[in-house]
Amino acid sequence: MTEAEFIAALRRLPLHAGALGLGDDAARVGGFVVTTDTLVEGVHFLSDDPPGDVAWKLVAVSLSDLAGKGAVPEGVLLNYPLSGRTWDRAFLAGLNACLAVFDCPLIGGDTVSLPAGAPRVLTVTAIGRDAAAPVRAGAQAGDRLWVTGTIGDAGAGLAVAQAGSGPETLLAAYRRPRPRLAEGRILAPLAHAMMDVSDGLLIDAWRMAAASNLAVTIALDAVPLSAAYRAYAGDDPLAAATAGDDYQLLCALPPGERPTGHATCIGTFAAGAGLQLTRHSNPVPLPERLGFEHRA
Amino acid sequence: MTEAEFIAALRRLPLHAGALGLGDDAARVGGFVVTTDTLVEGVHFLSDDPPGDVAWKLVAVSLSDLAGKGAVPEGVLLNYPLSGRTWDRAFLAGLNACLAVFDCPLIGGDTVSLPAGAPRVLTVTAIGRDAAAPVRAGAQAGDRLWVTGTIGDAGAGLAVAQAGSGPETLLAAYRRPRPRLAEGRILAPLAHAMMDVSDGLLIDAWRMAAASNLAVTIALDAVPLSAAYRAYAGDDPLAAATAGDDYQLLCALPPGERPTGHATCIGTFAAGAGLQLTRHSNPVPLPERLGFEHRA
Repeated sequence: MTEAEFIAALRRLPLHAGALGLGDDAARVGGFVVTTDTLVEGVHFLSDDPPGDVAWKLVAVSLSDLAGKGAVPEGVLLNYPLSGRTWDRAFLAGLNACLAVFDCPLIGGDTVSLPAGAPRVLTVTAIGRDAAAPVRAGAQAGDRLWVTGTIGDAGAGLAVAQAGSGPETLLAAYRRPRPRLAEGRILAPLAHAMMDVSDGLLIDAWRMAAASNLAVTIALDAVPLSAAYRAYAGDDPLAAATAGDDYQLLCALPPGERPTGHATCIGTFAAGAGLQLTRHSNPVPLPERLGFEHRA
Repeated sequence: MTEAEFIAALRRLPLHAGALGLGDDAARVGGFVVTTDTLVEGVHFLSDDPPGDVAWKLVAVSLSDLAGKGAVPEGVLLNYPLSGRTWDRAFLAGLNACLAVFDCPLIGGDTVSLPAGAPRVLTVTAIGRDAAAPVRAGAQAGDRLWVTGTIGDAGAGLAVAQAGSGPETLLAAYRRPRPRLAEGRILAPLAHAMMDVSDGLLIDAWRMAAASNLAVTIALDAVPLSAAYRAYAGDDPLAAATAGDDYQLLCALPPGERPTGHATCIGTFAAGAGLQLTRHSNPVPLPERLGFEHRA
């Protein structure tokens, strides 16, 4: 089955009311939000990626889903395959650093042994509290689209990793993303819809619009790019907006809300369907690829 | 690292108060209990095991940890590697059956793709509510040791599976274990300590005693064996008491509590340390192997 077919089949099982039809990045259970992510060696990370960075990213990816709900991290559970002393130790160091930076304790987990030579498969389940918990599907016509931070740094960081050298700041954006928990706390109570940007700005904005039964127009010239990105990759926002792993937050805010300093306004929702792009107010054709569409 | 070394290292990370020092089978988060289990193809199940049975066991193993806390299942999250249409469909059928039987909805999850040929790695995280949540370490000197159901059926069922034929009821105990959720609800409010029996009655009883800083004596002639077990494997309770995958509940009750009909009294806790066995009140030497000691 494809991922879409499998999820469609899961929707025919008994679903929890807080599962939101399996259409969101986190579920609501009591006063908590819950999300889980699995990373696979050779698919989501490379065998020679530093183990500490794998640990960081594994946790950060789940905390980013909590950030998208405006939650405070309550803690995480870890499912870990024992991987040899050197790898295990480096993984633990990165795990410790990430948990400390984001003030997120370990709740529990499970350790397993894998057959020799099997790729590592790691899972983190994150629980958050006190979340305003806006959904992905709540945008309204007339809402503005806002995004936190800068876009494209992680994508450029992947290119740096592949090239073997380049700006450290971009590499860090790729290897040690920083979930926008503080911004999530500020934006969630204001937002009609919110989600994190994991697969690319354009595809994730399109998904928010589609889930909300709306069209969205993005002004490419408004997409925030870092100085490091511009120096390394140039001024074209289209490459940045179709790269993955940003882990910024994307939200739909009523026109009167202007959380300047925490996010940048880059677009508008309207009745209709689909994604439109503009540059200096002129229409721009969509690129062939909006982001990581088929990533499972 | 060994599993014990890795868990010792995890204990030096920031821990959630409800993690109970990572020494229990489930953590407490708000009004909930949370547990997670990973099953690996070639380690915890075989490539030719029926996929529906793998799904059932994956969920049942986690629900058994909830039963050990006396919890009502709130729901589960599933981390699933897409495995081809036939396997996926059979897995979904078993998942549906297990969720329906135990009245447990799906909360969420994550699907991934594995590299070609990689062993399947599956995770379920279960959340329970309304738990009295006795811990493993709470037994007191003078408490009696009680166990639900019968012991050894799943171990005999594994032998049936390996032989390719034998009593269906034993095979079902191995392939589709039934977490003792109802018994858990009754026993948890009475128990000083409780846990599920997953690695073998003797080793798990020894673990409860060790966690409680006590000795435990088990009367082997009191260990409940099913008629099917006796007919297939004979009357020796030692083989049954060292086999795994029972998913019964083991609890320490004050001497005055007698939940007859829900459990069987098989032993006594006392000051001291270690496990002693008796048969018809005479001491019996410990077997070399108490259960699955090194299972990760």
